[in-house]
Amino acid sequence: MAALLRAARTAWAPCATGRRFATGYIQRAAAEGRDSLLGQFQSTGDRFDSVLRGMECIKVEEGYVECQITVGDGVKNAYGTMHGGCTATLVDVLGTMALLSKDPTRPGVSVEMSQTFMAPAKGGEVITVTGTVTKYGRALGFTEVKLTDASGKLLATGRHTKAFPQKP
Amino acid sequence: MAALLRAARTAWAPCATGRRFATGYIQRAAAEGRDSLLGQFQSTGDRFDSVLRGMECIKVEEGYVECQITVGDGVKNAYGTMHGGCTATLVDVLGTMALLSKDPTRPGVSVEMSQTFMAPAKGGEVITVTGTVTKYGRALGFTEVKLTDASGKLLATGRHTKAFPQKP
Amino acid sequence: MAALLRAARTAWAPCATGRRFATGYIQRAAAEGRDSLLGQFQSTGDRFDSVLRGMECIKVEEGYVECQITVGDGVKNAYGTMHGGCTATLVDVLGTMALLSKDPTRPGVSVEMSQTFMAPAKGGEVITVTGTVTKYGRALGFTEVKLTDASGKLLATGRHTKAFPQKP
Amino acid sequence: MAALLRAARTAWAPCATGRRFATGYIQRAAAEGRDSLLGQFQSTGDRFDSVLRGMECIKVEEGYVECQITVGDGVKNAYGTMHGGCTATLVDVLGTMALLSKDPTRPGVSVEMSQTFMAPAKGGEVITVTGTVTKYGRALGFTEVKLTDASGKLLATGRHTKAFPQKP
Repeated sequence: MAALLRAARTAWAPCATGRRFATGYIQRAAAEGRDSLLGQFQSTGDRFDSVLRGMECIKVEEGYVECQITVGDGVKNAYGTMHGGCTATLVDVLGTMALLSKDPTRPGVSVEMSQTFMAPAKGGEVITVTGTVTKYGRALGFTEVKLTDASGKLLATGRHTKAFPQKP
Repeated sequence: MAALLRAARTAWAPCATGRRFATGYIQRAAAEGRDSLLGQFQSTGDRFDSVLRGMECIKVEEGYVECQITVGDGVKNAYGTMHGGCTATLVDVLGTMALLSKDPTRPGVSVEMSQTFMAPAKGGEVITVTGTVTKYGRALGFTEVKLTDASGKLLATGRHTKAFPQKP
Repeated sequence: MAALLRAARTAWAPCATGRRFATGYIQRAAAEGRDSLLGQFQSTGDRFDSVLRGMECIKVEEGYVECQITVGDGVKNAYGTMHGGCTATLVDVLGTMALLSKDPTRPGVSVEMSQTFMAPAKGGEVITVTGTVTKYGRALGFTEVKLTDASGKLLATGRHTKAFPQKP
Repeated sequence: MAALLRAARTAWAPCATGRRFATGYIQRAAAEGRDSLLGQFQSTGDRFDSVLRGMECIKVEEGYVECQITVGDGVKNAYGTMHGGCTATLVDVLGTMALLSKDPTRPGVSVEMSQTFMAPAKGGEVITVTGTVTKYGRALGFTEVKLTDASGKLLATGRHTKAFPQKP
């Protein structure tokens, strides 16, 4: 496991051209299985989910993932707290990771997302984000995502529903 | 107007330290009024909304804003289409811009957001994003955001509801 | 058409046992086509959607339906305005009617609904409710529902997303 | 307590005119406190929430309520399962009850609701519905509602966000 993570991290080191390899957590899960979600978040290189680079996945069970992310400058809004778009991105990504923890080959396609903002995630704080599968079907997968601060206070909650396209 | 935009763009050039000035569209609107939303999107420098750098605001009316963004690498997911987290960030930002077009000093605080994904925004396409105020109250502001492609096809729709905190 | 509606209304008259025939708008659409949605709302007798009895469907086009409902006692809350549960029921039913206007044999199965409440629908007022298909796919149908009062003021908006189950 | 409930039930018996007194759970909570939520659901007589008559509240704690409802004819759709509008009404009412369990004088005004449907609530089944306050603020109250069947399977989940209007 440790060796695997080390290898994966190596694969993410900047290559000669200054770009990173575009093999994110979705491709890794399909190739290496659910445990590959553990450790540093595997972004698709310079694409959108690189905004979550620095996030760490600390627990993966069937239908459940748990990550931690520090509210650094790159995820802040104009007030120095986590940007709502970042919270929504966490709902997107953690929901997908939770589905991958059921079947690492089925990331699904987004149908619906929602977010409720109870309290700001303050700059510098370490936020825990959990993704849970609430229903795993043949055609649809349902997930719930929660953000809490170090004291356990609920900051935001969301849902992410994805479709598993069927062969016609 | 043109001069103002030129000045604004200048203000965004990297400064000596390699960082950008952290004065985004919210601060600009408060200082310079609603028309400052026009032109290139004013991100808060290296913070989260810099993911939308490159977006252009092409129309501002009271309660309505219209922007265009090209689906470049920085907003893509692993499949080469717009990342759901980026769509959600557009719902966040365009909703806020729409509220600022009513009163440039009241950006509000996010309460709820939701997104429905009808079709992917394909790589390379120019996407039109509109933000509309559906109700503007004393304590709450309601907005609706739509993404369409060049052919006018609806790709995603969302709502962003914000609170205007009252003095206790 | 008029004869058809008359026949349908007859079918809804209380029968000898004091119960109504349980053939609502969904079954009628499947049997008689989209235009059967027009006229008085066809509830499934004494089941839940009888709360909307009295609603009138005044327009049906492909992907669009328009109804009117008076805020009578049966749809009020403790404050004498339309109950939020009734608004949500309208989002449910008008979304389904809109899908039936595309294909009267595919009502779909609810996946997600949401409602935003901008202003109360006052007692005694005639409310216009519109249902619009925003995307009609093979596996999923997306709709949007709006409630406005007689002055055209937007009172509430919602979305209803339904799945069309595929044969395994 | 038992006497109080008995008295309350008496108050709900049909009066001479065949109508019921229009004092629902919201008025009762304000007058008698949080524990008045316990027992048979107190609808506002012949208004919309009478669709939930027969529901029983079996637990009230600060920020939490738990009810049970049987899927009888009055809450069914055309397929004999719980109507989506009824599920949404439960999200509305249980969210409000949860807020009243924090302060029985502050029912709030609906701002947003959403529902995700994982599985149908089958005819004849006893459904458990829980309402939980996820954040209780000065201007806004946030709640989460879950429906489960007798086996503990999650059927639907929703959120209800309400505003507490401030004196201007």
